[in-house]
Amino acid sequence: MRMSSVKKIITIGEILVEIMAKEPGEGFRSPIDLVGPFPSGAPAIFIDQVAKLGQPCGIVSCVGDDDFGAMNTERLRRDGVDIAAIAVEPGAATGSAFVRYRKDGQRDFVFNIKHSACGLIRQTPDADALIDSADHLHVMGSSLFSDDIVTLIRRAIGRIKTKGGTVSFDPNIRKEILGLPGMIEALDHVLGQTDLFLPSGPELFLLTGATDEVPAVREILARGVRAIVLKRGADGATYYEHGAPLHMPAFRVEEVDPTGAGDSFGATFVTCWLRDMAPREALRLATASGARAVRVKGPMEGTSTRAELDAFLANHDSGVPSGRLAPRHGTRGRSRDRTSPP
Amino acid sequence: MRMSSVKKIITIGEILVEIMAKEPGEGFRSPIDLVGPFPSGAPAIFIDQVAKLGQPCGIVSCVGDDDFGAMNTERLRRDGVDIAAIAVEPGAATGSAFVRYRKDGQRDFVFNIKHSACGLIRQTPDADALIDSADHLHVMGSSLFSDDIVTLIRRAIGRIKTKGGTVSFDPNIRKEILGLPGMIEALDHVLGQTDLFLPSGPELFLLTGATDEVPAVREILARGVRAIVLKRGADGATYYEHGAPLHMPAFRVEEVDPTGAGDSFGATFVTCWLRDMAPREALRLATASGARAVRVKGPMEGTSTRAELDAFLANHDSGVPSGRLAPRHGTRGRSRDRTSPP
Repeated sequence: MRMSSVKKIITIGEILVEIMAKEPGEGFRSPIDLVGPFPSGAPAIFIDQVAKLGQPCGIVSCVGDDDFGAMNTERLRRDGVDIAAIAVEPGAATGSAFVRYRKDGQRDFVFNIKHSACGLIRQTPDADALIDSADHLHVMGSSLFSDDIVTLIRRAIGRIKTKGGTVSFDPNIRKEILGLPGMIEALDHVLGQTDLFLPSGPELFLLTGATDEVPAVREILARGVRAIVLKRGADGATYYEHGAPLHMPAFRVEEVDPTGAGDSFGATFVTCWLRDMAPREALRLATASGARAVRVKGPMEGTSTRAELDAFLANHDSGVPSGRLAPRHGTRGRSRDRTSPP
Repeated sequence: MRMSSVKKIITIGEILVEIMAKEPGEGFRSPIDLVGPFPSGAPAIFIDQVAKLGQPCGIVSCVGDDDFGAMNTERLRRDGVDIAAIAVEPGAATGSAFVRYRKDGQRDFVFNIKHSACGLIRQTPDADALIDSADHLHVMGSSLFSDDIVTLIRRAIGRIKTKGGTVSFDPNIRKEILGLPGMIEALDHVLGQTDLFLPSGPELFLLTGATDEVPAVREILARGVRAIVLKRGADGATYYEHGAPLHMPAFRVEEVDPTGAGDSFGATFVTCWLRDMAPREALRLATASGARAVRVKGPMEGTSTRAELDAFLANHDSGVPSGRLAPRHGTRGRSRDRTSPP
């Protein structure tokens, strides 16, 4: 049996607060009841889940010198994330997302990301130090919203791969960002360097010629990607490498808030994969992680420790086709969103 | 009797949404119940109140291409404000302010103004057209947060004064903004061009050598300011010109939310003053306007039509020293805030 060394995982990207509408409806054009701020941002949720599993980890990001930034940074620090490379930019506002569910399960957003402190994420001595300490980089497509951050991520990929490290990639893309100049090229560059690819539903086809699942998987594996985990929301997840695919149904849980579930799923899978866990066991823990996340209101509120995942698994059937998530409204629609469930 | 022509009033400055904490407490470092978005921004509240009195008016501003901008613009349009010079900036976020009252009546804020769409307010053909159509410019000190907007306001003052128009000025200053380079110079320039000055409490002394009220008033009038209305919160307001001062106590009303009351007071006074109303009557209507504003939650929700002011006055004693606002917590503290009550 090979003993794996402890791998340090980092990510680079947005830290946000999320403000949630209490009742479903359309948009934010009149005063309604809200709750927030909740710590958020797909890379932040991801790295918080990694930290809760006890893996060494850190994030390169930027917040404003305000309560929203302080709340996020304190949460990440408390949960075990290395926060040395989170810059605090006086005068800038911490990024924010207002989210409201429609009755059909779609979501309306009002974002402040690109012109918030998130837009000032760039190379710093602290970022360099964190990148140089890392064994693995996780890239969220949602983070590729500025030239500076794309440059920083490409550079980090180069440095980490050069010393034998690995890269995971979750396209996690919103259609608003997909139209930005150079976005497809940036995503394609990341995929070309990716070891572990974690698309949600139709994101599998974002960068392939093929439009059917099996040929698309083959096309991606042929580029050097070692494994793919296709997240299917309520339909579970499928693990692909060169052997036979491995499917894991979702757990049947009451859905309170799917935001962050895909990020938690990904973080748990990546952590297990870096611990050389068997894919079936990694999928099982990741699926439990996603299921626990959807039961809790708030994007980062549902991250789990290993003990919490084990307790969840002890109380739920898994690996059987009947063990599905309860039917949910509009899961397919959501699967195109920023932080979709697994 | 001289018939006054109908004067068009404009202002230049920030349009914001305000998100309010439901319960008092300190800051925004954990999820709490909120309500919003409410239309806000001191110049926006001011101009909405002007419009409700039936005066022709407009605002030069900028919002993002989002629900928050659309809500504000629609509210102002509906109430009669000329919105042609409100630019919509794709990619920018509409400005925002989170506000929470502390138990002592002080307020904690998280602002996104300077790097929001508000920071992109600048000269445009629509702004020029609105400025050229105006008889009167109202300047809020809170709006002088960028070089572009200071340049635009100085230019507007010059154009409007050259053709015989007038300027009113509410310092409405937050201490965060007072330290900006050039801020005191910008405020001083505006005061040197001001016809009607509307400071709150200690703002009277912001630009004077004198530190007592009567010498400070004399000093300001000697600079060419024609009249001063000193807003004293729960202690009412005092009108100064070269004759004897005129004091108006506040009305006794239940305070729900003082935000916006000073802006409503100012707008009503400026409108009445431009209609050549006697100062006592203008003060009476302005004080009613402030009193109605504090009774309603939301910064712009308490603006009043003339009929609403008349109905209020018919039901409340005024002009008698006993007719004061009920004692309130921390009014003096608040009087330094952005949108303090009169």
